[in-house]
Amino acid sequence: MSDLKDALDLIGRGTEEVIKLDELEARLKLGRPLRIKAGFDPTAPDLHIGHTVLLNKMRQFQNLGHRVIFLIGDFTGMIGDPTGKNVTRKPLSVEDVAENAKTYADQVFKVLDREQTELRFNSEWFGKMTAAEMIKLAAKHTVARMLERDDFQKRFRGEMPIAIHEFLYPLVQGYDSVALQADVELGGTDQKFNLLVGRQLQADVGQAPQIVITMPLLEGLDGVNKMSKSLGNYIGINEAPNQIFGKTMSISDDLMWRYFELLSFRMSLSDLREARRATESGERNPRDLKVELARELVARFHGESAAESAQAFWDQTVRGGAVPQDLVTRELLIPAQGETISVILKMAGLTSSSSESARKIAERAVRIDGVVVEDRAAVLAIGSEYLLQVGKRSYCRVRLGPVAS
Amino acid sequence: MSDLKDALDLIGRGTEEVIKLDELEARLKLGRPLRIKAGFDPTAPDLHIGHTVLLNKMRQFQNLGHRVIFLIGDFTGMIGDPTGKNVTRKPLSVEDVAENAKTYADQVFKVLDREQTELRFNSEWFGKMTAAEMIKLAAKHTVARMLERDDFQKRFRGEMPIAIHEFLYPLVQGYDSVALQADVELGGTDQKFNLLVGRQLQADVGQAPQIVITMPLLEGLDGVNKMSKSLGNYIGINEAPNQIFGKTMSISDDLMWRYFELLSFRMSLSDLREARRATESGERNPRDLKVELARELVARFHGESAAESAQAFWDQTVRGGAVPQDLVTRELLIPAQGETISVILKMAGLTSSSSESARKIAERAVRIDGVVVEDRAAVLAIGSEYLLQVGKRSYCRVRLGPVAS
Repeated sequence: MSDLKDALDLIGRGTEEVIKLDELEARLKLGRPLRIKAGFDPTAPDLHIGHTVLLNKMRQFQNLGHRVIFLIGDFTGMIGDPTGKNVTRKPLSVEDVAENAKTYADQVFKVLDREQTELRFNSEWFGKMTAAEMIKLAAKHTVARMLERDDFQKRFRGEMPIAIHEFLYPLVQGYDSVALQADVELGGTDQKFNLLVGRQLQADVGQAPQIVITMPLLEGLDGVNKMSKSLGNYIGINEAPNQIFGKTMSISDDLMWRYFELLSFRMSLSDLREARRATESGERNPRDLKVELARELVARFHGESAAESAQAFWDQTVRGGAVPQDLVTRELLIPAQGETISVILKMAGLTSSSSESARKIAERAVRIDGVVVEDRAAVLAIGSEYLLQVGKRSYCRVRLGPVAS
Repeated sequence: MSDLKDALDLIGRGTEEVIKLDELEARLKLGRPLRIKAGFDPTAPDLHIGHTVLLNKMRQFQNLGHRVIFLIGDFTGMIGDPTGKNVTRKPLSVEDVAENAKTYADQVFKVLDREQTELRFNSEWFGKMTAAEMIKLAAKHTVARMLERDDFQKRFRGEMPIAIHEFLYPLVQGYDSVALQADVELGGTDQKFNLLVGRQLQADVGQAPQIVITMPLLEGLDGVNKMSKSLGNYIGINEAPNQIFGKTMSISDDLMWRYFELLSFRMSLSDLREARRATESGERNPRDLKVELARELVARFHGESAAESAQAFWDQTVRGGAVPQDLVTRELLIPAQGETISVILKMAGLTSSSSESARKIAERAVRIDGVVVEDRAAVLAIGSEYLLQVGKRSYCRVRLGPVAS
């Protein structure tokens, strides 16, 4: 029984909602590995740690001995946007899907256990489905209930068009749970409606309805907005160790507790409560805790030794006083194809000319995110953030945006 | 050019709406046989003359040299009602569809020219359609536009459920026009919305959009309500000659003009205008005109000699004063399995007992719809109307309804 209580505590950690808790408890008591489903977009992913909130929950289920089904919704992706209004949603080819699945795999298995993961594609069952069966599926829901979904309701009231096939997609997603015989489905809070459709469709065919667990959307580094690439307030899981470390150290103490709850495996809930108490009473320094979180995140995506180096770099630069902790990020506007490091150093005001940049690079005095730059013609891409350093004391954090064309 | 004008006059006769007239004119000028589509329910039909308003229009197109496509919507019929709420809409089997098609053929070729008719089933193209293609079809329309359809709007506002698949059916019907490359689609006024969907879908794929022609719903014998089996105000096309003749003679003079316009092939529009003028000025007796209409209808469904006999029966009985013209119909309630003629004569008050009925039948003094009854145990079915006669002067018109169980 204490095992069950521990399992429920771990599963409940950081969740927004569990529908329904008593069903989850009963299902866990069955003693068999449960089938934990989570669905992912088939478009090319470039994950940040906000996405890992869900992956972490999947991993926790794996740690408890359950089986995770990583479902790629390629069926609708291969249809594209049939209204033709959204040019960015072109139909994906079979090759695109395979390529994107590989990109996912490269990233998600930094969190998930490959052995306990089933990678599935819903074209497996929908590719064989007939129009008649789709009509029968459409009969499972009413127009009024579909319009209860927040975004549909908003668009309908705002007289913005909703194409009829959009009403079919929640049913497609729900039917995936039937096809996979899912015990549990995980998703963001914005997915709750769709996850509940899965419960209904399973009940219709006599399956025990899946337990629905929603996870909150992670706040970005600013602690205010949802973490997203376009807002620039993110930590990408493919970012360099020093970047991940430095960005983690930049968050507020308040946000740190939230990140611990949703992102840490090392800090148990009871340890977390104790750490919080100790910090509030002044026994512990929040910066030391933040270092623990930063090390854990770097280690997850780059390994333990990279985490050690990142911490060493941090100690040597920022802690040693080299990088001012209140360094603000400057927005530099560069061409779409990127810009050379020589020019960017000058734009950032760290050198007075491109030729001075070139000299400093030749002297091995320039670092990007702590790594010495060897090639003065190296091009930095837009959309990224870098900590630039010239010599021992000149620092600038820059974000590279596109110049208006 | 006068041929074109004549064609437009004939096609326009009795129509509710032509969308669009100039397109119809241009299409007729092409000089090729046009493809005239009309869709029919795949459930077992038992047609009355209200249904023939549409069939007559189809026949007029055939008379002008065009090709009629009699489309049976078996695809959705074979799905049935997937919500399971409507037990009377069970899925039809392939055998059911074939059987119903035969029943249709037996009836509709009393009006249509078999040689110029293509009998088609929409399962031909929808049976092969995939779920993905159905989703693409669903993307062709918006929720808001679908809710503009009168009946959907009414149900939506009244908070009565609309299952999502019901939004797919107008698209299915519209797609039939694409598959058939229809030039013209005919339907009742209640079908206007669906017929217009066909126009849109054809335009989407680059076909010239079909011309939509809606026909009014024929008023029943009462001149007030739409003709329908359940209201009992109908003339069935399989009814006995004397029945069709007598029922036609029972309509009001006003309704007669309407029936002429929508049901007669023999009376041209100009003849009709002249007849109306002559009647209003007292030069012609409306009853003589009604006899012409009654003869035409009997001849259509039973042949010319049956029409002559029916008129002779009418002349001999009603005109001779035997049957009072103001005879009202009595409703008799009988068991579901029907009732013997002996009992019904007693119930109608034409005999005082079943044994008197039997005696009268043995004397060959009993007629049903003018035909002598030979078998006193003959069973009359519920849902029908009969003119009963005992001897020379006793008449009763009865409608047989089910007794409450």
